[in-house]
Order: sequence, then structure tokens, then C-alpha cells
Amino acid sequence: MKVGFIGLGIMGRPMALNLLKAGFDLTVWARREASMQPLLAAGAHGAESPAAVAGQVDVVISMVADAPDVEAVMLGERGVCHGARLGLVAVDMSTIAPDAARGIGWRLSGCGIDFVDAPVSGGEVGAIAGTLSIMAGGSAAAFARARPAFAAMGKNIVHVGESGAGQVAKAANQILTGVGVLAVAEALLFARKNGVDPAKVREAMLGGAAHSRILENHGQRMLDRQFKPGFKAWMHQKDMNIVMHAAHRLGLCLPASAAATQALNAMVGKGLGEEDSIAVLKVLESLTGELPLDGK
Amino acid sequence: MKVGFIGLGIMGRPMALNLLKAGFDLTVWARREASMQPLLAAGAHGAESPAAVAGQVDVVISMVADAPDVEAVMLGERGVCHGARLGLVAVDMSTIAPDAARGIGWRLSGCGIDFVDAPVSGGEVGAIAGTLSIMAGGSAAAFARARPAFAAMGKNIVHVGESGAGQVAKAANQILTGVGVLAVAEALLFARKNGVDPAKVREAMLGGAAHSRILENHGQRMLDRQFKPGFKAWMHQKDMNIVMHAAHRLGLCLPASAAATQALNAMVGKGLGEEDSIAVLKVLESLTGELPLDGK
Repeated sequence: MKVGFIGLGIMGRPMALNLLKAGFDLTVWARREASMQPLLAAGAHGAESPAAVAGQVDVVISMVADAPDVEAVMLGERGVCHGARLGLVAVDMSTIAPDAARGIGWRLSGCGIDFVDAPVSGGEVGAIAGTLSIMAGGSAAAFARARPAFAAMGKNIVHVGESGAGQVAKAANQILTGVGVLAVAEALLFARKNGVDPAKVREAMLGGAAHSRILENHGQRMLDRQFKPGFKAWMHQKDMNIVMHAAHRLGLCLPASAAATQALNAMVGKGLGEEDSIAVLKVLESLTGELPLDGK
Repeated sequence: MKVGFIGLGIMGRPMALNLLKAGFDLTVWARREASMQPLLAAGAHGAESPAAVAGQVDVVISMVADAPDVEAVMLGERGVCHGARLGLVAVDMSTIAPDAARGIGWRLSGCGIDFVDAPVSGGEVGAIAGTLSIMAGGSAAAFARARPAFAAMGKNIVHVGESGAGQVAKAANQILTGVGVLAVAEALLFARKNGVDPAKVREAMLGGAAHSRILENHGQRMLDRQFKPGFKAWMHQKDMNIVMHAAHRLGLCLPASAAATQALNAMVGKGLGEEDSIAVLKVLESLTGELPLDGK
């Protein structure tokens, strides 16, 4: 199977490298030519445009920043839709709004292209290790076609439902991680302000119903004050914006998600957007008067 | 070692039975005599009052509803402090405010009694199985004296710190479970209102960073609409009240805890207090117009 990859940033590059390692014939394109070099050196073919990639492969994958970027590479002037071979499956693995994904899928179907939205969880570490969680939406047939490529990049691969369902699952996932990180920050700060060692409290909580991967991993990094990303606060803020927009449209009351969104807004407002989202702990600390309001 | 047990309700009875099974010489007291019968039948001695229990044992444990009950059995007219043998260790395993625990410990020390606050997590199931998480606060010496009894009732036993530290850890634990349950309810409802199967979304999320025991257990029960407790909403509301009072006193901003507290207030207000706290899902549903406002 021939695979195309568009977008070779922090996530896209290691994902594309894992496709090469798995033996796929890979054609790549990136906006900046320099981003393509490591892939070409590893044996990938380069192409002139997304359309040129699409003309040479069976499955084309995009991993870019946001919905306008996906639209540009899929539907733009030199986009995938203008070069596709018959029966092409297009997969977008970026995190964008479910509605945007459905719209792109609809427009691609007009060019005879099957679309799968397949956002991931697991970050740069998971991308490098090939252990991403992949949440896919689209027809069963298109999912089956893309699955061998997914298997080279991820571990927990779930076909969630029809077009947009992958993005819905990712948004739900970001609710749990956004709220979860805030809750762990609150619990650990609560312990410390009550004069109790938060490391001991974390240890006690890990043994029971409160156990979570976030308490285990993010909680330890909060104790170590390791605020380097990881997952940048402004990206989580972007994801919660997707959640809150969908909630607005559907008339959904999501009080914990709203609290997490506001905390992320405060982080970005304080200039902490480039830090890991666990730096929400600093926002809470600044509100107790422990840290100056510039929060650094 | 001789152990006393005061309070033989849903939690206290199985905990006391596990002490008997482990071979401890056990003396019990409960407000209602009928509550004592199963323990007496299993080989425990009965006593006339908490003071009488205290006169016959090395470690006396209370498992009652709230701080006034602990004060009554420990410090009241016929309380533990009026019958204690030299070197008695008194342990309260109820969930009460950290400040209340510290005050009771302080007053018991005036009677020459060492006090340990040791609330638990794990519910009735954990109490029966002897797999409770036990979070203890008090001197290292008193904790060491009580530890053999803890080992008969629980699995993850952590000496968190000085007096009150166990209750601080339990309060932090309730932040994570209260916020966690609300977040899972929001994520699953978000999925369904977006037209996607919440069971599939849960499956996709379980594989990644959002994995938690709450998503695993409570999430499945939400999908099955099994709202039978488990852990009653009004008890979780009581625990979040402890958290929010401590936050008020300390000048702590806890936005996710506040959201969870309000959701529990709404549950109790809607008459759902006797259901499991996962019935918070019904509160969210009633706010989308899916359920009538009486929420049943």
C-alpha cells in the first residue's frame, strides 16, 4: 500500500517515520521544504503539492494545526481533491471541530474521495513510540483501508462511528484530560495549603477510586514542578474551545468543562500558553497570593 | 491485641467482621442494639457504652456519620475519654473535616489518649472485601500501634502525616472523585448529544491519557444507567461541603471542585440524594431538556 503524509511537524514527523519503518512506500509534502528533509533522508519520496501526493498513493494522511489548514491541503487550489486517484482514502489526524471534519468529509465525497477523521491522543511521546490512541470516524470500508497505516502509528485504534465521530471522541477525551489536570492541581494544592505533604496525599489517593493516569503522570510532574510541555496549554485551550462551541450549539450545560476552559484561558492570558497544561497549578497558586500575578 | 469498634452501620459492620476474621479480640458498641447482634453472633463482646469499650481494649475505632457523632462517642458523657486504659489509641475512620479531627485529637490528648484520623476510600464493597484505602493522620507511634488493625480492613494504607492529615487526604480524594464523576458524565453526554455512541467513545478514551478508574467503573455504570449506590450523592455532597469550607477558610480558589459541589447540590435538591453520585448525569440531562426537571 502506498501512503502519503502531509504536515511534518512535532507530531507528523515521527508518525511518518513510523510508516516508513513499517515498510510503507511513503510520499510526503510539507509547507516548509526543510521539514521534508529528514523524511527524504529516511527513504520517503517528496512531492510538489498535496495534489501531487494524492496522485501517487492509496491513502493520504494530513497532520496539521487547525481546520483552515486541513481545508487548504484537502480542498485548496493544489489540494488533495485536485490530484486524487480513483478510490483514494483521505485521513485527517489533526484535532479540529467535529462539524468542520464533517464538512470537509462531505466536500471530499464530491470529488469521489472517502474521508476519515482520526485524531490522536498520546502526544509527541506516543507519536515517536508508535503508541498513539487513534479515534476514527468514517465509513467502515474507508476505516478498513486506512487501518494498516494506523497500526504503524498507534496502539488503541477505535472506529468510533460515522464521519466526525473521531473528532467527537477526541473532544470528549480533552474534556477528561482538561478537567482531570485541573482537579489534580486543586487536590494537590488543597493538601499543601492544609499543611500536608501533597506527595503523600497523591500516594494515598493512587490506591483507590481516585486512581487515574493523570494523577499518576501529570500529578508527579506537578510535584516535581516540571512545566515543560508535554502538551502545550494553548493547544488544550484550542481543544476546549471546540468543546465549548459544540456545547453552545447543542444547548449543553458542561460546568466542569467550563471551569477547565476558564483556567486554560487564564493560563494563556498570563503568558503561560507555551508551558504544559499542568501549569494550571500556577494559576491556582497565583490566586492564593503565593505567586505574583504575572505567574512566571 | 484487643480492639474496640464503635458504629456498626453499612461500613462499620463489615470492617468489624474483618477484624474478627483476622483473629482480634473484639469489643463492640453501637447506638442501636440491633446493630450489635451480627457481631455478637460472630464472636465479638458487647459493651454498654463507648467508655466501657475503651476500658477493655488497646485500640478503639469509631466509624460513624459526622463530626458531632465522633465527638459524642469520643468525648461525650459516656465517651471513650471517660473509660480509657493507659496508652489507649483512639482511631476515627469516619469522614469529617480536618479541623474537626484535629480538635478531637487535641482534646483526647488531654485525657492521655493518642488519636489517629484514618478515613477510608473504597465504599461498602471495599469494606466487605477488606480492600479499603486507609489514609491516616497522627503520630508515627500511634499509627504503628493501629496498623495491624488497619491491615485487617484495608490494602493501601498510607501514613499521610500529623493529626488531621488523613482527613485532608480524604478531602483531596473526594475532589478527584467528585470532579471525576462530573467530567465523565459531561464527556459521555457530549458524545451522545453529538450523535456518537458514548460506549465507543469511552472505549477509545480508556486507551489513552484520559484513563481512570472512574471512567472504567462509574463510566460503565452511567452507560448501563445503574444509579443504585454505591456511594450516595448526599454523602458526596457532605464531603464536598468539607472541601469548600476549608477552601473558604484558606482563601483557596478551586473552580472544578466548586462546579462539582454545585452539581451535587442540584442532585440533592432534585431529590436524587439517595442515588449514587453518578446520577449527576441526570442533572446534566435535565438541563438539556431531555428529562423533566424533577429528574426521576
